[in-house]
Amino acid sequence: MRRSTPWIFPLIALAVAVAPASAKPRDEAGLDARISADEMVGWMKRLAAEPSHVSSPASRGNAEWVRDQFQSWGWDARIETFQVLYPTPLSVSLERLTPTPFRATLTEAPVPGDGSSSKTKDQLPAYVAFQGDGDVTAPLVYVNFGMPEDYRALERMGVSVKGKIVIARYGVGWRGLKPKLAQDHGAIGCIIYSDPQQDGYGTDDVYPKGGGRPAQSFQRGSVADMPIYPGDPLTPGVGATENAKRLTRETAETVLKIPVLPISYGDARHFLEALEGSVVPAAFVGGLPITYHLGGTDAVKVHLAVKSEWSLKTIYDVVAVLKGSEQPDQWVLRGNHRDGWVFGAADPISGHVSLMAEAKAIGAQARAGQRPKRTLVYLSWDAEEPMLLGSTEWAETHADELKAKAVIYLNSDGNERGQFGAEGSHAFEHYVNQVIADVQDPETGVPVAQRLRASMQVRGAEPGAGERAAAQAKLAADPAHDLPIGALGSGSDYSAFIAHLGIPSINFSFGGEGNSGGVYHSAYDTWEHHLAFDDPGLAYSAALAKVGARLVTRIADADLPVQVYGNLAETVAGYRDEIKKLTASRRDAQQVQSRLLASGAYRLADDPTRPRADPTALSPVPDISFAPLDSAVTHLQKSAAAYDQALAARGPGLSKATRSQLFELQRRLEMTLARDPGLPGRPWYRNMLYAPGRFTGYGAKTLPGIREAIEEERWVDANRYMKLTAQTLEAYASGLDEAVRLIQGA
Amino acid sequence: MRRSTPWIFPLIALAVAVAPASAKPRDEAGLDARISADEMVGWMKRLAAEPSHVSSPASRGNAEWVRDQFQSWGWDARIETFQVLYPTPLSVSLERLTPTPFRATLTEAPVPGDGSSSKTKDQLPAYVAFQGDGDVTAPLVYVNFGMPEDYRALERMGVSVKGKIVIARYGVGWRGLKPKLAQDHGAIGCIIYSDPQQDGYGTDDVYPKGGGRPAQSFQRGSVADMPIYPGDPLTPGVGATENAKRLTRETAETVLKIPVLPISYGDARHFLEALEGSVVPAAFVGGLPITYHLGGTDAVKVHLAVKSEWSLKTIYDVVAVLKGSEQPDQWVLRGNHRDGWVFGAADPISGHVSLMAEAKAIGAQARAGQRPKRTLVYLSWDAEEPMLLGSTEWAETHADELKAKAVIYLNSDGNERGQFGAEGSHAFEHYVNQVIADVQDPETGVPVAQRLRASMQVRGAEPGAGERAAAQAKLAADPAHDLPIGALGSGSDYSAFIAHLGIPSINFSFGGEGNSGGVYHSAYDTWEHHLAFDDPGLAYSAALAKVGARLVTRIADADLPVQVYGNLAETVAGYRDEIKKLTASRRDAQQVQSRLLASGAYRLADDPTRPRADPTALSPVPDISFAPLDSAVTHLQKSAAAYDQALAARGPGLSKATRSQLFELQRRLEMTLARDPGLPGRPWYRNMLYAPGRFTGYGAKTLPGIREAIEEERWVDANRYMKLTAQTLEAYASGLDEAVRLIQGA
Repeated sequence: MRRSTPWIFPLIALAVAVAPASAKPRDEAGLDARISADEMVGWMKRLAAEPSHVSSPASRGNAEWVRDQFQSWGWDARIETFQVLYPTPLSVSLERLTPTPFRATLTEAPVPGDGSSSKTKDQLPAYVAFQGDGDVTAPLVYVNFGMPEDYRALERMGVSVKGKIVIARYGVGWRGLKPKLAQDHGAIGCIIYSDPQQDGYGTDDVYPKGGGRPAQSFQRGSVADMPIYPGDPLTPGVGATENAKRLTRETAETVLKIPVLPISYGDARHFLEALEGSVVPAAFVGGLPITYHLGGTDAVKVHLAVKSEWSLKTIYDVVAVLKGSEQPDQWVLRGNHRDGWVFGAADPISGHVSLMAEAKAIGAQARAGQRPKRTLVYLSWDAEEPMLLGSTEWAETHADELKAKAVIYLNSDGNERGQFGAEGSHAFEHYVNQVIADVQDPETGVPVAQRLRASMQVRGAEPGAGERAAAQAKLAADPAHDLPIGALGSGSDYSAFIAHLGIPSINFSFGGEGNSGGVYHSAYDTWEHHLAFDDPGLAYSAALAKVGARLVTRIADADLPVQVYGNLAETVAGYRDEIKKLTASRRDAQQVQSRLLASGAYRLADDPTRPRADPTALSPVPDISFAPLDSAVTHLQKSAAAYDQALAARGPGLSKATRSQLFELQRRLEMTLARDPGLPGRPWYRNMLYAPGRFTGYGAKTLPGIREAIEEERWVDANRYMKLTAQTLEAYASGLDEAVRLIQGA
Repeated sequence: MRRSTPWIFPLIALAVAVAPASAKPRDEAGLDARISADEMVGWMKRLAAEPSHVSSPASRGNAEWVRDQFQSWGWDARIETFQVLYPTPLSVSLERLTPTPFRATLTEAPVPGDGSSSKTKDQLPAYVAFQGDGDVTAPLVYVNFGMPEDYRALERMGVSVKGKIVIARYGVGWRGLKPKLAQDHGAIGCIIYSDPQQDGYGTDDVYPKGGGRPAQSFQRGSVADMPIYPGDPLTPGVGATENAKRLTRETAETVLKIPVLPISYGDARHFLEALEGSVVPAAFVGGLPITYHLGGTDAVKVHLAVKSEWSLKTIYDVVAVLKGSEQPDQWVLRGNHRDGWVFGAADPISGHVSLMAEAKAIGAQARAGQRPKRTLVYLSWDAEEPMLLGSTEWAETHADELKAKAVIYLNSDGNERGQFGAEGSHAFEHYVNQVIADVQDPETGVPVAQRLRASMQVRGAEPGAGERAAAQAKLAADPAHDLPIGALGSGSDYSAFIAHLGIPSINFSFGGEGNSGGVYHSAYDTWEHHLAFDDPGLAYSAALAKVGARLVTRIADADLPVQVYGNLAETVAGYRDEIKKLTASRRDAQQVQSRLLASGAYRLADDPTRPRADPTALSPVPDISFAPLDSAVTHLQKSAAAYDQALAARGPGLSKATRSQLFELQRRLEMTLARDPGLPGRPWYRNMLYAPGRFTGYGAKTLPGIREAIEEERWVDANRYMKLTAQTLEAYASGLDEAVRLIQGA
């Protein structure tokens, strides 16, 4: 926990408070002993043997096998299906017409020594899901990463993408924003390529010599407009059950209108090196051995054609339940997806085998008499890759029951060697810290938390470390402080739980020392690659299972709420401070810009032979009153401190009935952070604390209603969401006050 | 001038004060009218027609032609020769022996359309001056930029260069530091190559399509140990006249001991792509389409051999004098070098033709009756490239006369399109500002100062602008503030004047919008390249001449000193603040590092499969008293303000005799900043305010005796130079006090 407010109770007392009061504590060493990395390797080879994308034979086959495994471990497991829109590629084609013809290969040839990669039969070709199909011919424009700042730079340079096909490189922002922004700027087609600077030879030896992306490899993915809503484009907000009311593809807001293809840098070079027009600015330079140009002229005309089959497809979630012995109607949810873009060894099987190992170990303990007190629901999601379809449709289908029963959703996804990382609901930050203090890092032998603490400190002490790294290092340097966890944006199956329903969620993984990124969403994400370069022997998948098993069982067995609200209050206060700083710096920037525009300084500063248009004028920042938010944050800080202190002092002495009442009170409290009408223009996103950014995609925006309004100069929204967010936090704080009264009255 | 101290007099009054009191002001429009860009183009084609390095036929031929030109313009011009050590390459060779043989080309083939580049007869091959000759065979190690931080990184990764040959890329630090540091770390040979990321296809289309460096081009240069002393290695501190006492090559501290060659990226690729060993860290990745490795294994063994002829050579300075009409014994010095590494169109002829145009115009005015009041000494230096030989030997030879007569030294060198920039003695900052307010930028038509002011503001307002850019922008936003000029390190002919003798100096140029950098020190630095990509029509060489003519004549004609000391005092106070901040941050860094070392955090933070050694422990920062410096800076600020105010108020009313006395007083005062014993370990550098950094080379270190001592953990030196620097500044301030008394007593 954090200590910067004086009324927060000392950590040691809190640690006592949240320890389960069970008479018979769970044998965690026993859990660890039942987690076998060798067995996980076998499961990985089994699940990553064939391509497992939606509508592939393995999509169903793997679901049935996983269901059977869970059943064999004593779980009540079944398959739940949904009918979702999922476009299957019929034909994809990309040609350079001028200056000379060239046809992109769009295939990933087998790699010597990697048997999996030679199974080319059921592989998807170069393809991204929920692009718009089409057959277009136009000049090509290079738009760097295709992010908003790139379009601003292009606009100043006088380069328009209207009526053109753009080529963007992967990186910086989420994939789906690239064609979306291209479309918004009038482009009629979009190519996304993997530049060697980001994950190819610029980062590592390429596969099979090393883990990096080889010249012929491309990144598949989804380009549905996720920041509007994830899940089946035809059924926003409701489950895609057989008889659900559906939009048409044409009216579904999240399906793009223009054709899009991903390509390799081997292919991309043939398009980029022929471009004419201006030489790019320094920030646009990638790792190909060419001078990058902006293009946009007839020198390079390309023909892009994509045709898909758009019928509904069946997806297969596996839902496995282990009923709680004392509170069967309180559910601890734990999920990882099972579908890959091709074989998916790293993404997602490396995390999925951890979930399986946990389930097997917990199942064995249950059979031996130690059932969890609350019900565990393990979820093997299908169709995460096209846009979180399996989890979103399930959560939407069971929304009412989840609101009534869910305690927490614990998510993992791809995993590899490296440091532990977690993002999620900050009331559970202390809980995560406790868990990782008790699991050993496989390679150093010290607790995972100790390694992470060392790493945060070293990173922050490096010359040139950013402000954020330095701040984290400062926290990490104090052993009495909890290590900070991040905020959840999007990009995996927690989205519907935390962002739509408000169910507190934690996403956790190890990473940063393998190279699964080098084959991300390619046909080379195989067990051969994974065991060679990402996590030999799956030591870190085993460690993930040990973390997962603790996260699941400690809360399932807990007699008292595990939340520590001081961490949440402090984090929210930090977000508020960031937004104040953002507002002040935007105000300054607007004033400076206004002066520079008036004086003609931009034109004088530019090279006269490469004149640029003035930047678009920023809107003057009006007075924005932070008073409601300040007041709510102060309330939250006080209430959180009072609660943490009261629970620490009196929690252990509470009667069983009161404890149970308190647990349920706090369970329900968490969900009040999500409220209607949701965020501006995207009501599906209802959490007032955390959301994926409208223009960052996976990247989180915190206090998003306020922050994005200020970033996007929507001043009316800024004031409106200042009030709405403040109300939400006031209500949450009042909930804590109620809990304090319950504790003290008991 | 700067305004942050309240007692500094308003700018407007100062502007009045420093205006020349002459009855007949010089016709500056007339000067401008006599400066012809067309004529300068002709001179450039003449001077850049043949290679002009030391001992080339054009070295002497160009000197004679320039002398004749000056004479024809009414100047008293002659050639002054020196006998300097200069190694002429006899043979150069670089081969890869393993895994397969490859021999580096080491030549720059002619470029189509560039007639000059086809004159290959007298060109120097791939070569750097004052390397150590040798014939070595060893494994190759890639050391990134070959700077101190690179060696620290290599050491932590367990890679030693002892007994190896290193390959470093150009960039970040000065060329000569690369082999010097390699040698200090035990390497037996050094290769320096031009990575395409720095000046090749990563920056622009390559020559002849654009201005960037083509694959076969390499950068010649000097690798003498300049931070110890520049000039002839055999005659430190004295002129290399015929009978000078000389060191031997072996005892000359600035000649390296290991063989060194520069190569192109076309050649370098064949060496780098075969390297094995660890994949490099991200900061080491260059622009070649390969995965960079550290090497150091027998996988790549190379054979490097360089043999030179080391006899003394004659160099040819042209010294042209226009005697002053009133103060013939006060000299205004103005120089630009004339020698190139090959044709040298940009470096140095683009600046040299400006110097010629000034001299012709001023000469014509003198003939028409407007002689300068003080004597002008125009200097066309030879042998700048090998290590400032022409200027250093001349300044050392005439040291006593210069101390007695020199008012200022005004230097230029290569020039191209772009923004104005100046570095030098800050007492003349206001003077430079006045000059550039009166010269038009050729392409925008606004005053040079106005364009620079706009540019500084825009740069500082860019997202992600550094602290320095932001601070400059803030200054530039206030029109009453002078624009800041930089501090002089080294890299051109001002070195002996400012750093050794203490003669105030200004170096000035236009740049940043041409691409002379793409052919820097190569056989493609031709007039063809220059007129196509660097400065078409030499419009900016003409602008440079207009600036130069004003800088020279305004001070030569001035009745009162032109210095404004408030600028100097404020700048020095800023340097002091930087060093205090540096000291505090080093103290913090040492304490953090000490804690991290003790806890074993570095090992835990690293990838266990790529373990690194702990960083070398920083030395604890002792208490360093800034009191003497603080006291001196306060004195300087007060005295400067008093002087500026006194001169503004009473200067115009002073008698001619007193004005003359004051001018001479201030002239002598400037030189007191240089004092013995000079800087630690390099007594040749005597200026206590400005020096080239021991480990930055060209890059300046200000208050160098103190700053470098703290950076290098020489705590005894830090305290010693705190006192010495403070004494120097106190004496300088006392000189100002004396001037105030003179003004007020008059």
